[in-house]
This record gives sequence, C-alpha cells and structure tokens, in this order.
Amino acid sequence: MRAVDLIRTKRDGGALDRAQIEFFVAGVSTGTFPDYQIAALLMAIWLRGMTADETAWLTAAMVGSGVRLSYPDLGGIPVDKHSTGGVGDKTSLILAPLAAACGALVPMMSGRGLGHSGGTLDKLESIPGFRTALSLDELRAAMRRIGCALISQTDEVAPADRKLYALRDVTGTVESIPLISASIMSKKIAEGIGGLVLDVKTGAGAFMKTPERAKDLATSLVAIGRASGVRTEAIITNMDAPLGRSVGNALEVIECIEILKGKGPGDVEALAVLLAARMLMLAGIEHDEAAASATLREALRSGAGLETFRRIVENQGGDPRALDDYRRLPSAPDREPIRAPRSGYVAEIRAGHVGDATVTLGAGRARLDDVIDHGVGVEVLVPRGMPVREGEPVLMVHHRHGRGLDDALPLLDAALVMSDEPPALGPLVLERVAD
Amino acid sequence: MRAVDLIRTKRDGGALDRAQIEFFVAGVSTGTFPDYQIAALLMAIWLRGMTADETAWLTAAMVGSGVRLSYPDLGGIPVDKHSTGGVGDKTSLILAPLAAACGALVPMMSGRGLGHSGGTLDKLESIPGFRTALSLDELRAAMRRIGCALISQTDEVAPADRKLYALRDVTGTVESIPLISASIMSKKIAEGIGGLVLDVKTGAGAFMKTPERAKDLATSLVAIGRASGVRTEAIITNMDAPLGRSVGNALEVIECIEILKGKGPGDVEALAVLLAARMLMLAGIEHDEAAASATLREALRSGAGLETFRRIVENQGGDPRALDDYRRLPSAPDREPIRAPRSGYVAEIRAGHVGDATVTLGAGRARLDDVIDHGVGVEVLVPRGMPVREGEPVLMVHHRHGRGLDDALPLLDAALVMSDEPPALGPLVLERVAD
Repeated sequence: MRAVDLIRTKRDGGALDRAQIEFFVAGVSTGTFPDYQIAALLMAIWLRGMTADETAWLTAAMVGSGVRLSYPDLGGIPVDKHSTGGVGDKTSLILAPLAAACGALVPMMSGRGLGHSGGTLDKLESIPGFRTALSLDELRAAMRRIGCALISQTDEVAPADRKLYALRDVTGTVESIPLISASIMSKKIAEGIGGLVLDVKTGAGAFMKTPERAKDLATSLVAIGRASGVRTEAIITNMDAPLGRSVGNALEVIECIEILKGKGPGDVEALAVLLAARMLMLAGIEHDEAAASATLREALRSGAGLETFRRIVENQGGDPRALDDYRRLPSAPDREPIRAPRSGYVAEIRAGHVGDATVTLGAGRARLDDVIDHGVGVEVLVPRGMPVREGEPVLMVHHRHGRGLDDALPLLDAALVMSDEPPALGPLVLERVAD
Repeated sequence: MRAVDLIRTKRDGGALDRAQIEFFVAGVSTGTFPDYQIAALLMAIWLRGMTADETAWLTAAMVGSGVRLSYPDLGGIPVDKHSTGGVGDKTSLILAPLAAACGALVPMMSGRGLGHSGGTLDKLESIPGFRTALSLDELRAAMRRIGCALISQTDEVAPADRKLYALRDVTGTVESIPLISASIMSKKIAEGIGGLVLDVKTGAGAFMKTPERAKDLATSLVAIGRASGVRTEAIITNMDAPLGRSVGNALEVIECIEILKGKGPGDVEALAVLLAARMLMLAGIEHDEAAASATLREALRSGAGLETFRRIVENQGGDPRALDDYRRLPSAPDREPIRAPRSGYVAEIRAGHVGDATVTLGAGRARLDDVIDHGVGVEVLVPRGMPVREGEPVLMVHHRHGRGLDDALPLLDAALVMSDEPPALGPLVLERVAD
C-alpha cells in the first residue's frame, strides 16, 4: 500500500477501505506517513468528504492508536457529555458533578478553548491549585472515590488525533465534518464510556453556523457512536447569544457554583439538567426523562451536586474555599460598562462578537500556545428580551488595566442590538438526533 | 500574510491575488512555507483549479525564483518546442538540429522520462559520452557556435518548480492543468525564448486522455505564453499508437538518425517538420508554412540537419561515430517477437500498453531515481493499417536476458488489436490552438 494511492483515491472522490484507513492512522502514529502526505490527504478529505463507514473506521483507528480505558471494577455504564463549543457554555462544570451525585460514572476528558469558544479546562484552572493533568491511575482512583473527574486528554489517549489536529490547524482543514467527528468521538470513546450526550451548538457564536450543518455533524457523531458501541444522542442547541450571564473563566466558574447553590440563571441550569437527565438515562440509572430531571433538581436543591463538585475540586488539588469565597478566584481589577445606546428592549447580544471580545481581553486563545488571563471577561447585566433605558449598563467588561479594551469595546457595541418591541426569543433546544 | 489564509481561500474556491501567489512561491523557494502547507495548498489547487491570471502569476513567480536567460549578442528570436509526452515521441532530436540548421536559435532544456513517456535526455544519453548537464556558460557558448543545445534543466532555472514538482509527485497533485501549465511554461520561459511550439498529446498513450482535456491544457499553456510575452502556439496530436517505429532510448536515437539521413518513416518525419516549420515562423525566419516546410525538407535532403546534430553531439561530448555505426550505441542482446494471433489487419497498437511494457523491460522509470537500460525497447515491424498473416511478427521486443519479459509480453499481446477490414486511421494532428 502506498500513501500516494490513498491520496489519489480520496482526491478523485472515492472511498478508502478499512485497511487503507488503518494504514494511514498507523503511518500518522509512527511517522512513516510524512506530514506533506498527511496534509494532502486531509485537504482531499476536507473537499471530498468521507462516508459514514470511513469516518467510523478513522475514529476506530484513532482510538486504537492509544489506550481505551475501562472501569471493570466499578460496575455501571460510564457516561459523558461533549459540547461542540459556544460562548459562555459552562454546562460541564454543573452537569458532571450533578450526574455523579446521582450515581453516574463521569470520566470527563475536556479540551482547552480556542478561538471564541471557551474551554472547560481553562475554566477549571481558574480555581487556585486545580490540576487537570491527571494520570490514568489518578483518573481511575477518582472514578472509584467520587465517580467523576474533570481532566485533560492524556498522552495515552488517541495520540494520532493530537498529531492530526496540529496539522489540520495549520493546513486549513479543521472545519470538516468527518474530521471533526472522528476527532471528538475518538477521544470520547477512548474514555471508556458506554453512553454519550452531545450538545451540538449552532448559530453565530458556534462552529456550525446553520442548523443544517449542525444536524449533519450531529448525525455523523451519532453514527460513529453506533458503530463503536457507545450509545450516543445529540441535541442541537442555539448559540446566537452567550449562554448564561458570564463569559470568561473565573466569572463562569462563579456562575456555575451559584447554579449548584440553586441561585443561577434559567438557561444554563435548564440546559445542564436536560443534558444530565439524558446522561442518567444512558447510564441506566433513570428510565424516564421527567424522573431523571426531578432527581437532578433534588440534587441541586439538596446541595448534593455542589458537594460533589467540592470533592472533585479537593481531589484534583483545587482550593475548595473558593466555592464559598469568590475572592479566592482570579478577578480583573477594572470595569467598563457597555450602555444601552437608546431605550428599548435588548433584542440581541451577539455571541460571536462577545466571544471575540473576551479573547481580545485575554480570556481566550487566538493560538494554542497563548497564555490565558482567568480574571477577565464580560458579564451580561441585562439579558435578551428585557427592557432597558438609554444609558443603562447592559454588559460589564472585566478587564486588566485596559488590555485589549480598545479592540473589545467596538465588538461589544456591535454585539448589542436594541429593538422597540420585545423580541421573539427562539427555543434553546432546536432538535434531537439519536439512533 | 499567513500561509493558512491562502490555503483556506483556495480551499473555498476563491482566487489568490498576485501578492499571495508571490508570497507562496517565495515561501517555497526559501523554505518558510513548510512542506505540509504547500501540500495542502497543492491539493486545494488540484481540486479547485486556478484562473488564467493565477496560473500566469504562478508561472511568472516560478520563473522569477531563478534566472531567466537571454542571448543579447546573438540577435534573432530564440524558439523551442515542448511535447507533453508520448510513447515513441522522439521529434526533439530531429527538429532541434533541423531548425538550427535553418538558422533558428534553439536553447532546448528537456526532462527525463517518467512513467510510460520517454524523455529526451534519456534518449540522448544513450549516445556514449553525451553530456546533458551543461552549465549556463556552456549553453551560451553552444548557442553561439551551433545555435542549439539539448540539455537538462539547470539548478538556476525555476528552482521553485523543482521543489513543487517533487512534492506534487508524492502527494497525488501532478495531474492538474494549472500546475502542469505553470511547471512547463516556467522552465520554457526561463530559457529566454521568444517563441514556443507545443505538441499536446492526447489519447490512450498520453497524459491527457481526451481531446477536450488536451484542448484545456493547450489553451492554458498558450494563455501563459501570451501573458509572459512568449509567442506560443499549440497543436494537439494523437497518441493512441506509438509514434514512429521504435520505443526505447537507443532504438529511438537510431530512428532519428535514419530520419535525418532521409530514410525514416513518415509520421515522425511529418510531425517533426510540421513543428519545426512553426518554430521557423515564430523565429521570424520564414513567413509562410509551405516555404518553411520546403526549407526544412531541403535541410533533411542535403544532410544539413544531420550535420548539425553531429555538431551538437560532438559539442556535448558524445561519440559522433555512433551516428554512422549504430553498434556503438547500447543494444539489448535478446529478441522476442510478438506475432499476429490471426491473419488480418493491424488495427491498433495501443501506445499505453507499449509504453508500460518498455518501462517494464527497463527502458523507463517507474520512479524518478530508477536507472535506465538504454538498449532495451520495442520495435514496430508492421505498423497500423497493414495486413499480416497469422504467426507473422508484428512487434519485436529487445530485452536483456529476459528482464521484465514476463510482465511485458502480456502487455504487448494486449497492445496488438487485429481486424478483418483495413482500419480507419485518424489524423495525427487534431487541432491547433494559438492566440
């Protein structure tokens, strides 16, 4: 088998067979497939696509390039959730401890933020001392003790995906549904889960700009899950406005803790409970969504979710006192309000603009090796649909000595759209995709 | 400007501007554009194409990556011919000395064979001592003394093309009309010519399998010539059957010498004279095709073309006695006939099969670094359209101790197609493309 023949087949719109895809992934892992041939094949895949079979084989081969975990001594079906990324999307920090508090096993490996999407690891690392780089042994111990760990992808998990992602990033081949699908699913399958809930975001603040593209991605992800023996379902959710009331790492952690204390805003809590309910059902803990939701709300009300989050923080070296005293979290010293340009209703708070503004302030990365400022961000003071008077603050910028402010302010001014009439707010959940 | 932005633009079907293309070629030349990004862009170009402007800019930038020769002391308009490659295509060895004998300046840089297309350099190197790797100073001296040199591309000429070609070869991005066009034309323009005749082959034995694809390539090449100030015209010629009576390096040299002696077969001589006539007209030496043809035929008849070839051979270190005594050329020790399977007419001698068979025997390269056997090849004893009796030899294989014979014989059996009625033979020249 020769690399160039695989490239030609895909270039001409053909499908690769399982042996060819395994040859490719093995070549990526061992370095025998040189970068320029990988790059050419990735571009051909970007432009020609992959069949469901090819995508499933690619995923399986990437899983096989590293270890696939299992927890035979724990019983139960480990479950997880993955979001394709949005602005202010912080549900992992709520639903993982909440589901674990209700008996689920949640071995959650997350990523860092890139572009205007935040990353779960970055948010967690705003808690002083919190360690996301656990070894596999530490992960297993956490699963035994708490039923949940929130960690970064270890070197042992899908190493071929890491190599491929680095090349995709510099060769304009990131935004390909089969490549995205295989990348996401290979890491999740390697976690050793039996059930997976996907939150596929769509809208101006999401990777998938249209519901159709989001549906395509959701369908691809669910098909891989099926082919891999992981029960997978996806919900497609709106990402036109930031989720919740804060964007920025420590600000979002505070919002999550408030929700776990039963005091958080509606949309984040509703979405976290919905996703966690599906997780409990996939885990076989609940068999009815209404019952699952009730169980989860009781865990919120009783503080069991917050208690599990505290144990996770302690177990991973974080300072649990930060959960009670937010002054122990990083914060930005300076504030700048964005005021309503006229009286009326807040019709839109454009998620993409807000995301870009927070990256500019230092909360996110333009490049993978950028260093993050955990304290900065943007707070939503008046959410969509609410009336405001001219000059009233709608957003509050948390910045550090004006860093990035000159670029962030025009973005945030443009993010805020006013209307005379109360705007129609669409549903948060647009569609479900399952087997 | 960032490499990844160029890749994305092309990937999405957009056109690159002149500055972007210059940035790309400069990056290829200096190594600042890494191979994997070049490969991704090449694949995007392969699949998305390039506009005529983009192709002309790419060509100009590749010319600019090295030296562009000129011969200010010689007067006249240097001219050249380029063939896209066929089986048994040996016209360069005839028309270059013939046109030079009629006063043309022909600074011909050629390539080596790859796949089933032979290469002019390989043919010339079957003459003992013949050196194709002349320096630019040696080239200039030859132009002054003889008006013609037949050499390989020097390192100074279009170095970016060499780098790109090497990558295209291993990334499945060779067969792209804009990339082929820019590669061909950058080298020819750098020779310092003012006129160029292109022989674009089409058919089973050619790179361009259909007349439509050949027309597309011819149109692209002529457009680049126009944009570069080189008067360029193309003829599209049939390559279903081998050109002439021999395929294989020394065998083809002998055929060329025979033609220069006035004894060669019709199709090669006719095509060489046609192409050389266009060269004389582009050089401004003749203003009428009939007159140009008459001049060339007189140079054939008088032996002036042979004499110029002899001087070229001597000047480049070759043994001129080989022109009179073919035993001084390499030859294969063994013969094997391919016989007519039944009585009838030779309807087809499939060029692609014959080309592949000669590569198998050792006359050509499957890879750029293969070593060539100059003596082996295939002789056509009975050309297309002629009647034969069952068992009569139609082709004669020249092989060395059976090397490659087991693979070559079935190819040659399949190459030979018989018919009961005399076959209709199409025209050799299908179309002309000019400004």
